[in-house]
Amino acid sequence: MIGIAADLFAKNGYHGTGMAELGQAAGLGRGALYHYIGSKEAVLYAISKEQVDKMNSYAEALFDLGLEPEDLLRQMARGLLRNIAEHRSEWAVFFREHTALTGARRDHVIAARERYESYWRQALDTGVRVGVLRQTPSLLVKGILGMLNYTYLWLDPQGELTPDEVADMFLDALIKGLRL
Amino acid sequence: MIGIAADLFAKNGYHGTGMAELGQAAGLGRGALYHYIGSKEAVLYAISKEQVDKMNSYAEALFDLGLEPEDLLRQMARGLLRNIAEHRSEWAVFFREHTALTGARRDHVIAARERYESYWRQALDTGVRVGVLRQTPSLLVKGILGMLNYTYLWLDPQGELTPDEVADMFLDALIKGLRL
Repeated sequence: MIGIAADLFAKNGYHGTGMAELGQAAGLGRGALYHYIGSKEAVLYAISKEQVDKMNSYAEALFDLGLEPEDLLRQMARGLLRNIAEHRSEWAVFFREHTALTGARRDHVIAARERYESYWRQALDTGVRVGVLRQTPSLLVKGILGMLNYTYLWLDPQGELTPDEVADMFLDALIKGLRL
Repeated sequence: MIGIAADLFAKNGYHGTGMAELGQAAGLGRGALYHYIGSKEAVLYAISKEQVDKMNSYAEALFDLGLEPEDLLRQMARGLLRNIAEHRSEWAVFFREHTALTGARRDHVIAARERYESYWRQALDTGVRVGVLRQTPSLLVKGILGMLNYTYLWLDPQGELTPDEVADMFLDALIKGLRL
């Protein structure tokens, strides 16, 4: 259901997709649809939170491993691109449409995205502290995440480079530029 | 009119914005609206093509200056971020909604975006040819543009860093990693 809804929202936009279409695609009548999912916004919320929550758990697990900062950054990039390659519609909806969420749902998703950004900043800061990376403005994290996140537009698990190879290529370009 | 429409599309989505709202925001009645702008898709097209066409002209002008490859890349980045900072709604609409275009309009916008990518690739290739940059997979251009383009989400002309400073920071991080 979430995957089908993500495909529809990614294709026609959240505002451009009606509950009737959602129900039809999911093979549910209007009554069943409202019963199971409550509202269109609840579906958008489920789509928006699922992958970013996963990426936060993934980052936390990597931090627990006590990797060197460069390895940590590389593994975070690989994990993100692997996930994006598998869930392109979900990420498209998350990036384009999460601002349509309201109230506590919006707060949760924005907080989750900020937490994910903070893990990247923390990894870069650790690199500075242990003396392997130079100090950089905190806005650089948004640039790195722009580089990684917007692969959802073109990353192809069967493409010329695997998600891991794309992640490595991006980090190869960046890490040298960030070394002390 | 284009600016007003871009703000509306950026806020509510292309599919979520009706001609009636467009007319109201522009202070035009339904008849006048159709007379002046023809269709909602014509407005989306005007929004989508304007800035990318400008960026192509800007890149062509820079190429004509015969700059060193690194300077060329830096100036291209600065030009793009300056433009994005001034036209965030237009870029939001371009990135999120240009796939809603059809026929020749869609073809024009996609070709213009590909031309812009090709200028970046050409600048990187020149750096390789003259022996200052290392050879990189062509997909790197999509990463660099991801880094630059998605500043439309947060770049603030009155923010802690100017668009030029953000561009320089990104290119500082990248160019060292791309040097031979």
